[in-house]
Amino acid sequence: MTRVDRLLQHMEAEGIDGAFITSKANIYYYTNYFTDPHERLVALYIDTSGNRLLILPGMEKEDAKHAGWDGDFLAYSDTEDPWAFFETYLEKNPQRIGIEKEQLSVSRYETLTSLFDRTVFEDFTELLNQVRLIKEADEYRLLKEAASLADYGVKVGIESISEGKTELEILAAIEYALKKQGVREMSFSTMVLSGQKTASPHGTPGMKKIEKGDLVLFDLGVVWNGYCSDITRTVAFHHMEDKQKEIYQTVLEAQKKAIDQVQQGFEIGTIDKAARDHIQNAGYGPYFTHRIGHGIGIDVHEFPSLTTSNSLNIRKGMSFTIEPGVYVPGIGGVRIEDEIFVTEKGAELLTSYPKELQIIK
Amino acid sequence: MTRVDRLLQHMEAEGIDGAFITSKANIYYYTNYFTDPHERLVALYIDTSGNRLLILPGMEKEDAKHAGWDGDFLAYSDTEDPWAFFETYLEKNPQRIGIEKEQLSVSRYETLTSLFDRTVFEDFTELLNQVRLIKEADEYRLLKEAASLADYGVKVGIESISEGKTELEILAAIEYALKKQGVREMSFSTMVLSGQKTASPHGTPGMKKIEKGDLVLFDLGVVWNGYCSDITRTVAFHHMEDKQKEIYQTVLEAQKKAIDQVQQGFEIGTIDKAARDHIQNAGYGPYFTHRIGHGIGIDVHEFPSLTTSNSLNIRKGMSFTIEPGVYVPGIGGVRIEDEIFVTEKGAELLTSYPKELQIIK
Repeated sequence: MTRVDRLLQHMEAEGIDGAFITSKANIYYYTNYFTDPHERLVALYIDTSGNRLLILPGMEKEDAKHAGWDGDFLAYSDTEDPWAFFETYLEKNPQRIGIEKEQLSVSRYETLTSLFDRTVFEDFTELLNQVRLIKEADEYRLLKEAASLADYGVKVGIESISEGKTELEILAAIEYALKKQGVREMSFSTMVLSGQKTASPHGTPGMKKIEKGDLVLFDLGVVWNGYCSDITRTVAFHHMEDKQKEIYQTVLEAQKKAIDQVQQGFEIGTIDKAARDHIQNAGYGPYFTHRIGHGIGIDVHEFPSLTTSNSLNIRKGMSFTIEPGVYVPGIGGVRIEDEIFVTEKGAELLTSYPKELQIIK
Repeated sequence: MTRVDRLLQHMEAEGIDGAFITSKANIYYYTNYFTDPHERLVALYIDTSGNRLLILPGMEKEDAKHAGWDGDFLAYSDTEDPWAFFETYLEKNPQRIGIEKEQLSVSRYETLTSLFDRTVFEDFTELLNQVRLIKEADEYRLLKEAASLADYGVKVGIESISEGKTELEILAAIEYALKKQGVREMSFSTMVLSGQKTASPHGTPGMKKIEKGDLVLFDLGVVWNGYCSDITRTVAFHHMEDKQKEIYQTVLEAQKKAIDQVQQGFEIGTIDKAARDHIQNAGYGPYFTHRIGHGIGIDVHEFPSLTTSNSLNIRKGMSFTIEPGVYVPGIGGVRIEDEIFVTEKGAELLTSYPKELQIIK
């Protein structure tokens, strides 16, 4: 069964007879066409009457065909109005159309709804998330390849560390090496933070130079054939204070305990809880200031969100990150993150760069 | 007068008494705080009753203060609901609130509007665009610095060309060199295309190797203190066919003619028209498939759009790109792009890398 057919099945179960999909990630998932059209409209329309229509700028039509889309095309030029074409395309209006309300802009929504008289529009983001939640064999393979490239990025970064180099210089070396491997795009802005800057979970790399005694934190990932990776490692340069070592071991143990909770049928919230309890018991509870992880796939942050209160059952084929961190002002921050794929036996680690404490000399 | 005061003046003239601003670019413009909060809400609320409120995740509050925001804060944690706080913040509801409909998502719009009883919400994107259209002295300086870095990127790229190197390898060298200069982010995905791939205005760099006789096209820019740059140059490697030379000269002349039209008081559409007429007369009309340029500032593509039909008057302080291109399947594509700042005397070129034909040996 194709992915579109699978979606239609879910839609029928919910009584939704049309879908107007506008997020890059879902368009890629259903059409195999990866595009970033900026201000131009790209949308996938499907319905239970058999319509399958990809709306896109004319200059992208051949690429979409080449990517494998075999439904209809509504290819428009810069001087044409795709909405007018769309209105004439539909012979019969669906009763309920699913849209992505978190992603669709108000202006497009207003134009879209003005074309339909009696149709009800509703958010079906959750349904779309559910369809993408369990990864297929092909997706697993791409996630694994993307993760290996992230491992390589961390390796290059750690090998680039030396006294006096700037964070941005190290970052540049990482991305240079990855691009030479054929990586076109990072999955988010690469993070290389050092010294006190590691104490902020959302710092920005800059011209700060590496000094003896710095912690150095790498958080990075690539986009590989549309699939994302995400890894974090923290190392020390030259020497390390006892307090920093204690934090490192606390985070590492917390991460291992969290990974142990990855078992089919467990609630996903137990993963966060296991790490949080460990960090709390070690006295660092207030310094673990974010959720333990997030789903990963075509989007680097996707469904599900790994919070303590999430009662979703863990299932084979899910992929997500596990990334506890402790950030203590004046001492520094440590985060250790791996990407997990859920198998029958539990957690398979997609990222595999070593995580035992390293002091780079 | 502060930028917020200036906006309020425009709003009053239009009878809009509140503004709920959600785009990264406009938040930066009015608060000097540059943020990318992903799924978390960041918004600026101002009104004619004197309210000035920045809504943002708690962990970003100090950064925003440091950036210079001196109005109120609504800083929320991951477990708190910023909308509920916002509802209690307002003593009196405005009658008409301006929002950014092209940018605001439907789900946020629905939440926002549910908080207000009798308020009318309307799109005031055009008004916001008008305020940002004329650049101030500080903005000019940052645009110029960003443009110099783009010049440098092209220089590095052209010097990196050699037989057998991949497009991505050259791209990596460019971004490496720029990051060493302190650049954190490119303004869009850097483009390095070679050979037949130059014939597509929207190609993607890959593992294609540089061969003798290739055209090589660079399109790149940086983000520098929040301001973008954008330049395109096309060179030949080793040798060049006569037809390619003809296309190059046609595009170069078209660009110069377009730049000559940059005069205060002229309609902006004359810029596109001058280049298009020249290309048409040379017989390449059908191969110039896009508009001649776009405004540039905090966004790499911003208001105004430089199409033939745009009757907006050219004014001192505007900044935009001028980038004609001719793309002939089987022969290749040439695009030449500069960033322009409008002065009393006409066009000042912010980008200045030489554009006479270069054949790299």
